[in-house]
Amino acid sequence: MSYVRQDIASMKGYSPGLQPEGKDQIIKLNSNENPYPPSPKVKKALKNLVAADLRLYPDPVCFEVREKIANLYGFSPTQIICGNGSDEILNIIIRTFVQPGEAIGFNEPTFPLYRILGVLQGSKVISQPLIDPFDHPCVPASGLKVFFLANPNSPVGFGYPMSLVGKLVRDFKGIFVVDEAYAEFASENALQILREFENTIVVRTMSKSYSLAGARLGYAIGSEKWISEMFKVKDPFNVNQLTQTLVISALDDQDYFKRNIAKIIATRDWFTQEAGLLGYKIFPSQANFIFIQPPQKGRGSKFYELLLAQKIWTRFYDSDGLRDGVRMTIGSRGEMEVVMGVLKDLLGEWKA
Amino acid sequence: MSYVRQDIASMKGYSPGLQPEGKDQIIKLNSNENPYPPSPKVKKALKNLVAADLRLYPDPVCFEVREKIANLYGFSPTQIICGNGSDEILNIIIRTFVQPGEAIGFNEPTFPLYRILGVLQGSKVISQPLIDPFDHPCVPASGLKVFFLANPNSPVGFGYPMSLVGKLVRDFKGIFVVDEAYAEFASENALQILREFENTIVVRTMSKSYSLAGARLGYAIGSEKWISEMFKVKDPFNVNQLTQTLVISALDDQDYFKRNIAKIIATRDWFTQEAGLLGYKIFPSQANFIFIQPPQKGRGSKFYELLLAQKIWTRFYDSDGLRDGVRMTIGSRGEMEVVMGVLKDLLGEWKA
Repeated sequence: MSYVRQDIASMKGYSPGLQPEGKDQIIKLNSNENPYPPSPKVKKALKNLVAADLRLYPDPVCFEVREKIANLYGFSPTQIICGNGSDEILNIIIRTFVQPGEAIGFNEPTFPLYRILGVLQGSKVISQPLIDPFDHPCVPASGLKVFFLANPNSPVGFGYPMSLVGKLVRDFKGIFVVDEAYAEFASENALQILREFENTIVVRTMSKSYSLAGARLGYAIGSEKWISEMFKVKDPFNVNQLTQTLVISALDDQDYFKRNIAKIIATRDWFTQEAGLLGYKIFPSQANFIFIQPPQKGRGSKFYELLLAQKIWTRFYDSDGLRDGVRMTIGSRGEMEVVMGVLKDLLGEWKA
Repeated sequence: MSYVRQDIASMKGYSPGLQPEGKDQIIKLNSNENPYPPSPKVKKALKNLVAADLRLYPDPVCFEVREKIANLYGFSPTQIICGNGSDEILNIIIRTFVQPGEAIGFNEPTFPLYRILGVLQGSKVISQPLIDPFDHPCVPASGLKVFFLANPNSPVGFGYPMSLVGKLVRDFKGIFVVDEAYAEFASENALQILREFENTIVVRTMSKSYSLAGARLGYAIGSEKWISEMFKVKDPFNVNQLTQTLVISALDDQDYFKRNIAKIIATRDWFTQEAGLLGYKIFPSQANFIFIQPPQKGRGSKFYELLLAQKIWTRFYDSDGLRDGVRMTIGSRGEMEVVMGVLKDLLGEWKA
């Protein structure tokens, strides 16, 4: 006898990127982690943590973190909610706004978790395919309760201009979620749209841009009337105390943050140009990763394997529109120079 | 216009205990935190954490933690899932096993989160009232998909004998969750029942017994066929890397753990006896807290206020069966001696 919900028993869960057992020699470009360590202020805060404080529950509402983010971007703390990574924020959004049987939507390719969370909530899931060259989004279907736009897109990396996003939001009758997991690497973001349109929620994370994937802190910014309802849905003590302390110190070092981002953007843009000259196709990326395709179509899986053999870990997606290439995180300049050498060595593989 | 689900807009969220702003002079007995710091091994592990590692995602399946717990209790790691506190584990259980419209149940008084999670999932919530002197549970209603038994009970602290729990489990046609958040302070636990009855899931936490409320680690033990489905429902990276490391070191120091538990039990039993001699009523507790009532009925709220005025923080529940007293965590022996002095000073308040 099985007590499990039938829709869950028949679904596949989320597959994270491979995690290395030993870390020697691997160039790990499969999870969009930041190649640089977090700010020295985080290092100092980590050293100052007191074990005895761990016996106490964390601040259930993450007040200091929310105040810091609010001041940084010009919002009120009441417009911000923190989660155990932006994964939890997306989970909370679906559970706050979507009744079972109601619909959520997104364009694909996109972050696979939206679909999984929709299925878990018993939602109808309406996906519209984006067509290469991915230069404009599909207009959300009518009747959706929540629409998710990953902007910059994951896993392809392109970013829609805010003029386009603003129009979509304006015409949409539901909660429009702009998932800005990579916005710090982009030239534009949706914070101004959020100020203008009450049906917008922007989701951010400290994982990539602040080098804190291991600490788990995501947040949403939106109208106080949505955020206050999301607070009812979150687990009571969803962000641990260590993370709250470390995130505050990371946010306090904006100089380090900006230098770090600038380095990654410079490496991305250099790599995109050079690889393009070799014949690899890369969509212009607004994120800390690229979707890179060898000169021949349909060779993404082989490309993935050849890179893996050189201890370069990337991500291959066996789904429509994504079989021509791999998603590759932008590592350090040194790592990407090694990768560039491998790309040159592999050129012979793509001659028919 | 409101996009929020109507059942959420009309509900009240979970209320955690007060958190002090400054920690001076407060005797904080309102959140069942352990009065003693975590093991010196945790302190050492904390000092050895490397900030640069934070840039990487944590192990999504918490393998080392699960292996450690499995070895400790004689299970397989495949029978264990870790969560961001046992709150998240309870959340995952409801979402894995309960379709909207299906029913969950519990006896009340109990941990208030079961009801909240049931409402969030769109479940029918069937609660049966326990009657003072709380000496036997109600048989779960028929047709429940999941039944939650907090054993030891929260917030009253009594524990049912396993002979009684085993009978309930045997006769129940659904998932029987034994929430053992406080089992390390009790004389019995349900692990043997779990070995005998496949429909049992035991939920535990590191928060109280290992002094790690601030780190957030709960776990479930159950049949591999349930646990593997729960893995699909959890957020992909739900336990951060810092917590995984610290929990492993806490579990490694069983001597410290046992001494710590023994101290708290000794203080609890001493305090229960002494306060009883003064005329206060305390249900025999199997947890690290007591439900204590002044000699007069219906004075829980006043008792709470009088203690608060003495900077002793406890928890008053304004709900049926709980208005005669307060829930009081067992603090250090020194703290509880101060509280005992206050109980004596307050005796004059209870003369009619």
